Amino acid sequence: MDTDSLFQVDHARKIAAIPTEYDTFEKRNQFMANTASQWRSLPQLEQSLDKAWRNELYVVYNPTTKPYMLLERAFSVLIGVVTYGVHMNGYVAPCNTSSKELKLWIPRRSATKQTFPNKLDNTVAGGLGHPYGVWETLVKESLEEAGLEKQFVEQGAKAAGVVLYMIQPEGTHNQPEVEYIYDLEFPDETSILPFPVDGEAQDFQLMGFLEVLQRIKAHEFKPNCALVIIDFLIRWGYITPENEPNYLEIVHKSHRKIPFPTR
Amino acid sequence: MDTDSLFQVDHARKIAAIPTEYDTFEKRNQFMANTASQWRSLPQLEQSLDKAWRNELYVVYNPTTKPYMLLERAFSVLIGVVTYGVHMNGYVAPCNTSSKELKLWIPRRSATKQTFPNKLDNTVAGGLGHPYGVWETLVKESLEEAGLEKQFVEQGAKAAGVVLYMIQPEGTHNQPEVEYIYDLEFPDETSILPFPVDGEAQDFQLMGFLEVLQRIKAHEFKPNCALVIIDFLIRWGYITPENEPNYLEIVHKSHRKIPFPTR
Repeated sequence: MDTDSLFQVDHARKIAAIPTEYDTFEKRNQFMANTASQWRSLPQLEQSLDKAWRNELYVVYNPTTKPYMLLERAFSVLIGVVTYGVHMNGYVAPCNTSSKELKLWIPRRSATKQTFPNKLDNTVAGGLGHPYGVWETLVKESLEEAGLEKQFVEQGAKAAGVVLYMIQPEGTHNQPEVEYIYDLEFPDETSILPFPVDGEAQDFQLMGFLEVLQRIKAHEFKPNCALVIIDFLIRWGYITPENEPNYLEIVHKSHRKIPFPTR
Repeated sequence: MDTDSLFQVDHARKIAAIPTEYDTFEKRNQFMANTASQWRSLPQLEQSLDKAWRNELYVVYNPTTKPYMLLERAFSVLIGVVTYGVHMNGYVAPCNTSSKELKLWIPRRSATKQTFPNKLDNTVAGGLGHPYGVWETLVKESLEEAGLEKQFVEQGAKAAGVVLYMIQPEGTHNQPEVEYIYDLEFPDETSILPFPVDGEAQDFQLMGFLEVLQRIKAHEFKPNCALVIIDFLIRWGYITPENEPNYLEIVHKSHRKIPFPTR
């Protein structure tokens, strides 16, 4: 299949454009849906679009932060547009743990997940699918992924920043990601427990932060979840300018400028 | 005076270099001391170096993060090398204030300060002068500027990140700054009070965060101190992705890449 027949491709200038006749939000959505559908079973893709298909729409923004078009989640990752997610650190404060150390609720991803099976994860994490907002997604995913009641999350979750970075998912193309960060304090080690609901997680373990750091270093975490925990440990004074020689570099690289329009 | 006789200046390539014979840390320190001393009373400087003179040495780092040379603090600002400081947010948690809102201890800078007289400031803030470390500077400045006891600061201050940005002090040249951030919780509104010690502050007021935000918008704060408070309010969930349309831009611009070697 000639992909040039869909996008208008200028190989010399390295530009792939949507043909100008798709000049409204609705027309562009239809164009992207058609294109994604035609690409779905292309054998030459680095990763099968069909296997990764989510039936979930992501939003691409224009430079005035207005939604420019919608496209299938798996397709957005493939073509490298900015994607958005919500990650939450569930923790028990040192004064409320038996060992008097900070502990984090850490799930292990399902063995059958398309991406990063069996890796460790953040307590709650989910993509920002259309038409849900950031807070709405957080509350929804907390219940769906970790069985956390709406009221507990709504009363306890605190916005705590955002990490901004670029990854190369298959080592081939850049993918910019924006992950909104929330912290949620659990009152103690036993009275409220996250548990697998929708099969995204195998189980949840309450881990001391030193064990978490050790497992991060051993590459047991999905990489962006490790970053979210490192940001958490910086904000909470466990990783400091005095104990981490790369402090400045870690902070700026996890809040980098995304060189594309964002929401 | 011909400044070219000190630095080796290549006007075409816009480079000012230290002559190659100054090839050790000690020799470079001496070179910078001589140069600063000769520039001290130059009338053509945008701001009098003599008036700003601090008798405090700042460190310039080389790309391997080793100290490359020392130079007078006022001179470092003038020539635009990276400077470092420590800023601390002293706060009373909502549950411990009479109005049940988050409050911050805010000093007003002395009317006679060289820079930003009468502006509002962070509870404690100081430059990182040679040979003091980050934590050491924090503890020292807390006592000298705000009368906060060593034990209270050492037990309560928590590292919370770093802000990285560039300013144009006189609208003429860029100055990159690295400010290490600490938070210090006060137990209540009355039992521990900061107070002016060394004359840097006129007074300290305990201000609700909404009043602080209003005064930030009214430009009553020294600009980088406003940034430190905005970072604090983002980390503590008062400024959120839902209530601040420029959330992403604020976060990445306050953690930008410093395009020079840093510590």
